Amino acid sequence: MTRVCVLMGSDSDLPTMAACLEALERFEIPYEVMISSAHRVPEKTAEMAKNAAARGIEVIVAGAGSAAHLAGVIAAHTPLPVIAVPLSGSALNGLDALYASVQMPRGVPVATVAIDGAFNAGILAVQILGSGDPQLRDKVAAYKEELARQVASKNARLQEMGYKRYLESK
Amino acid sequence: MTRVCVLMGSDSDLPTMAACLEALERFEIPYEVMISSAHRVPEKTAEMAKNAAARGIEVIVAGAGSAAHLAGVIAAHTPLPVIAVPLSGSALNGLDALYASVQMPRGVPVATVAIDGAFNAGILAVQILGSGDPQLRDKVAAYKEELARQVASKNARLQEMGYKRYLESK
Amino acid sequence: MTRVCVLMGSDSDLPTMAACLEALERFEIPYEVMISSAHRVPEKTAEMAKNAAARGIEVIVAGAGSAAHLAGVIAAHTPLPVIAVPLSGSALNGLDALYASVQMPRGVPVATVAIDGAFNAGILAVQILGSGDPQLRDKVAAYKEELARQVASKNARLQEMGYKRYLESK
Amino acid sequence: MTRVCVLMGSDSDLPTMAACLEALERFEIPYEVMISSAHRVPEKTAEMAKNAAARGIEVIVAGAGSAAHLAGVIAAHTPLPVIAVPLSGSALNGLDALYASVQMPRGVPVATVAIDGAFNAGILAVQILGSGDPQLRDKVAAYKEELARQVASKNARLQEMGYKRYLESK
Amino acid sequence: MTRVCVLMGSDSDLPTMAACLEALERFEIPYEVMISSAHRVPEKTAEMAKNAAARGIEVIVAGAGSAAHLAGVIAAHTPLPVIAVPLSGSALNGLDALYASVQMPRGVPVATVAIDGAFNAGILAVQILGSGDPQLRDKVAAYKEELARQVASKNARLQEMGYKRYLESK
Amino acid sequence: MTRVCVLMGSDSDLPTMAACLEALERFEIPYEVMISSAHRVPEKTAEMAKNAAARGIEVIVAGAGSAAHLAGVIAAHTPLPVIAVPLSGSALNGLDALYASVQMPRGVPVATVAIDGAFNAGILAVQILGSGDPQLRDKVAAYKEELARQVASKNARLQEMGYKRYLESK
Amino acid sequence: MTRVCVLMGSDSDLPTMAACLEALERFEIPYEVMISSAHRVPEKTAEMAKNAAARGIEVIVAGAGSAAHLAGVIAAHTPLPVIAVPLSGSALNGLDALYASVQMPRGVPVATVAIDGAFNAGILAVQILGSGDPQLRDKVAAYKEELARQVASKNARLQEMGYKRYLESK
Amino acid sequence: MTRVCVLMGSDSDLPTMAACLEALERFEIPYEVMISSAHRVPEKTAEMAKNAAARGIEVIVAGAGSAAHLAGVIAAHTPLPVIAVPLSGSALNGLDALYASVQMPRGVPVATVAIDGAFNAGILAVQILGSGDPQLRDKVAAYKEELARQVASKNARLQEMGYKRYLESK
Repeated sequence: MTRVCVLMGSDSDLPTMAACLEALERFEIPYEVMISSAHRVPEKTAEMAKNAAARGIEVIVAGAGSAAHLAGVIAAHTPLPVIAVPLSGSALNGLDALYASVQMPRGVPVATVAIDGAFNAGILAVQILGSGDPQLRDKVAAYKEELARQVASKNARLQEMGYKRYLESK
Repeated sequence: MTRVCVLMGSDSDLPTMAACLEALERFEIPYEVMISSAHRVPEKTAEMAKNAAARGIEVIVAGAGSAAHLAGVIAAHTPLPVIAVPLSGSALNGLDALYASVQMPRGVPVATVAIDGAFNAGILAVQILGSGDPQLRDKVAAYKEELARQVASKNARLQEMGYKRYLESK
Repeated sequence: MTRVCVLMGSDSDLPTMAACLEALERFEIPYEVMISSAHRVPEKTAEMAKNAAARGIEVIVAGAGSAAHLAGVIAAHTPLPVIAVPLSGSALNGLDALYASVQMPRGVPVATVAIDGAFNAGILAVQILGSGDPQLRDKVAAYKEELARQVASKNARLQEMGYKRYLESK
Repeated sequence: MTRVCVLMGSDSDLPTMAACLEALERFEIPYEVMISSAHRVPEKTAEMAKNAAARGIEVIVAGAGSAAHLAGVIAAHTPLPVIAVPLSGSALNGLDALYASVQMPRGVPVATVAIDGAFNAGILAVQILGSGDPQLRDKVAAYKEELARQVASKNARLQEMGYKRYLESK
Repeated sequence: MTRVCVLMGSDSDLPTMAACLEALERFEIPYEVMISSAHRVPEKTAEMAKNAAARGIEVIVAGAGSAAHLAGVIAAHTPLPVIAVPLSGSALNGLDALYASVQMPRGVPVATVAIDGAFNAGILAVQILGSGDPQLRDKVAAYKEELARQVASKNARLQEMGYKRYLESK
Repeated sequence: MTRVCVLMGSDSDLPTMAACLEALERFEIPYEVMISSAHRVPEKTAEMAKNAAARGIEVIVAGAGSAAHLAGVIAAHTPLPVIAVPLSGSALNGLDALYASVQMPRGVPVATVAIDGAFNAGILAVQILGSGDPQLRDKVAAYKEELARQVASKNARLQEMGYKRYLESK
Repeated sequence: MTRVCVLMGSDSDLPTMAACLEALERFEIPYEVMISSAHRVPEKTAEMAKNAAARGIEVIVAGAGSAAHLAGVIAAHTPLPVIAVPLSGSALNGLDALYASVQMPRGVPVATVAIDGAFNAGILAVQILGSGDPQLRDKVAAYKEELARQVASKNARLQEMGYKRYLESK
Repeated sequence: MTRVCVLMGSDSDLPTMAACLEALERFEIPYEVMISSAHRVPEKTAEMAKNAAARGIEVIVAGAGSAAHLAGVIAAHTPLPVIAVPLSGSALNGLDALYASVQMPRGVPVATVAIDGAFNAGILAVQILGSGDPQLRDKVAAYKEELARQVASKNARLQEMGYKRYLESK
């Protein structure tokens, strides 16, 4: 059963947002992905948000750029936690999307991650699902250990090769 | 018959947005004023926007601060021109509201005025109504002449008094 | 009869501003397009602005970058609604043009759209013309429905193909 | 049993962070509140983060200003979801804290809310707890309806009184 | 004979701009001061700029806030050097005025000083007048020596009193 | 006799600063150009500034990027007017250089032009030389007329060709 | 023997810079404090910087606001480490001073601390002196433990009182 | 014996951070270089920082981008001076890393250099080591003289060739 719904404002956002889906796949979280726009299909977007909880969705991720209203509009229609991915691509390079996502008014929060931080939005969704699920939480802990191992292995390689050969080998 | 609908996200916006109403009153434009929030009453806001044109509204003005989605959400639901007043008051002092208002995506524009520029939103609404109405346009032209007279009269007073006495007299 | 006048500060702005003309053509709005500069041909610019209303122009669109004064200077000389398109291209990437366009003083508003938002300036001009013209307003509504259909069709394709094949097919 | 741990970098953050506690109290979520600093008591902070999940904590909220590292440091040590409240108070008015909170690197997300958005951090924590708990989710939905009623009631009062009397009565 | 013309967009700018006049008085430069607005009295402003050189004016100083177009509009109409004082007072605290003043397009420069730097605008005007006038230049050099003496005397006092007593004595 | 001294912090600034020299050449102003750095050759820079007036220099232009101190350091040592060209090239894209140039303290102004506005710095230098020299001032006026003619000719071509062919022909 | 020299651009900076002196006093570091200005007494400033090392100075701290050139100018004249304290107080609230301090060109670094971070500049100076002095380093370590104890004690008090009484007691 | 420890958050930072190592090599300072991450290997990072002084390290350099916590986390665990290199590469182009590095809270300073200023971080480390070591300090002075000679030689070449040939020859 689908647990996470990933939305984006335009299909031009898909190359960036794909990293969110990869994160969810890594943890074998069933998800759905949709193109929806707060400004172009406002009613479908509202409909989707209103029905999400009843359909079993537990977390919603919304990626949008420029005057990024998608996450906020979704949050207005659902009691579920909503994660915003502010996307770059405008002349303001995502700063507009960051402000439009994170500065939500009292009572209607949106959990905002880094500009273009789609992968982290997926990880955060998994962490939310795992907050009451020890098994999934352990998987997140294991993932964090893997991150640590990657750093350790790169560092070991750097110590072995020295920085000049390391740079050349990349 | 009501021609302009003025919305704001919260009654705390009213002291600033009142200047918009004064501008409309100055030109005897019938208006309505409502508190509506894209995030707290999304359905009523959408309803209002969808029905506005049929009710005879010709221009909508929306004032909102922080992640100011109100004007954009309204614009998503109506073919009418929508004017946004980005409001200060957040830690980012209205820059968030400016970006969230003006950086709308292709196909769904919002006519944005200055941060806290509620009076100018009213004047712009009048100019829009007047774009096809020579009589109202002449009133706008007369208003501009009055602005010019005010500057001329202040300047005359400055020439007469000199800047030191002018400063003391203020 | 020409209803919209589209100005730009330099012919280097034309590739961006062309999108405004396309938007107007889409709605079959008769327009004129001119290169005019608030700083290089100030008198012609003022002349143009002063005569616009008498010549039947109903809306003026002005695109300019850097210290973008064009829309403000036009607005100083006409009771017509003036739309500003702040253009990127400077080291500040259009933020200078945005501030110089939107932060107009009391009494002389300029309707500002997104940085490089020339297409939306055209749509806003149409919305202004349509605010008192039900037929044109219906065309705007129909255009919005088309936008919705495009999103729906992209979303349907995404559902059908899955995101990986969708990405490859682009 | 304590479900949410609320941390802040300094007791000078408490007046702002108290709103988070009020939000949690409103939903009767058992919480603990601590002063902890990523820079002044780094080991205790790490200890706390490492033990949180085992102690039954499900969500951590961290409020910090300036170079706000608290939430990120916590997130480095726990698989639990971590919410950051960037706090104003520095010369950069919270923009430093926002960037230092939201721009987390790949693999270690932090769910960031608005600058000084402590109340919303509390609501977001409740939404996270409620994502797999229909009863709590219904309480969030009921809270959202209350927000809507408040707006509706203020609007009704505005319609009744007119804006001038409304402003005077405030 | 008047050598410097000092303009400002509004009489609310006079308290800040007075420092420019004091600087000119200090060097006994004959000046005139006027309220003029690029947006409210565009024609008088243009007239003034066009006639300035013929009237013997050698330097023009223009102070304006928000979308500060005054200096740029003046510069469009005169071959004289134009100094801009970007004024704070808007929600963007003068950053809008700075960008709108300094980012002038190729061919039409404006000599911009600090936000609210009216005194320095006066000194710069004197330096420009003095660039070809050894006597006036010597006065500027003498003024700079006085600045140095003031610093030296404050420093001497600090050495004598120690910083604690110095602070108390202020 | 050399009338304008053009300085830059590094020879990597020369491609941008060359436009200043072209502007001076256009008006046949004798100039000198030097690489000098406030941070790498502080004493030579100070020496140069202190001797400039005695050597007959009337205006100094200084181009620098990043923490652009060159113009300010020059201004500290000379009563001559100093023009700053803030240069882009750093991660902050010239905003650092703009702030470091324009925000000079009371008593020591620097005439700042646009980021990378080297050509305009040359024009401003000419305007300063021309402020007391009617013949040179007339040349500036003639230059401005040429700018106007260029705009007019481009506009005429646009009217003749229409925007689509104009775009293709570029 | 004086080991640290603390400079500031103006005596108006003393109330902020005093915190640097307190930090040095806390560690019993002999210091001197001077008012010196890169723009008003450039030669004395250069003299001071050039002689500092020979006089036994080991670290220089420079506090300045606006276009803060003091630290950079000092660094140009000495091989000693120079710490910059960017000061707020301008319309840009210290962002100008931060950029003008930190963005130094290749070869001439300045160690920049937070805006108005005078106390930390003192601590950093002590850390630099202590980098090769185990006894002083131990004092810094002890100071850090004291910081930790303060946090622990405030936290203990918060646990004991609860947040409501804690807030009231402040 | 290793005197400087250079850390970076990821091996993708190595191409930029290599300049720091080159600076250290130029002064024959023994150093070590490690990949370590405040967020991915927090415990090893803390361990490294805690042991650094005992291992004879005198200065630590930490390069990190985005929400750059590395230098601050290190500084929390050591009495040694810590130098931060904020790295660009994020959508905010290093501004996030600058704020997250420089705005450290009272008591825990970090010596911040320019965005991507890795070479200067190396020079600053040398200056810190040299602050109590006249021989090393003399080497720094000699290095500064070399910088001056380079500028002088480029300037001489410019004088000889003229700017046009100089540009062509580059």
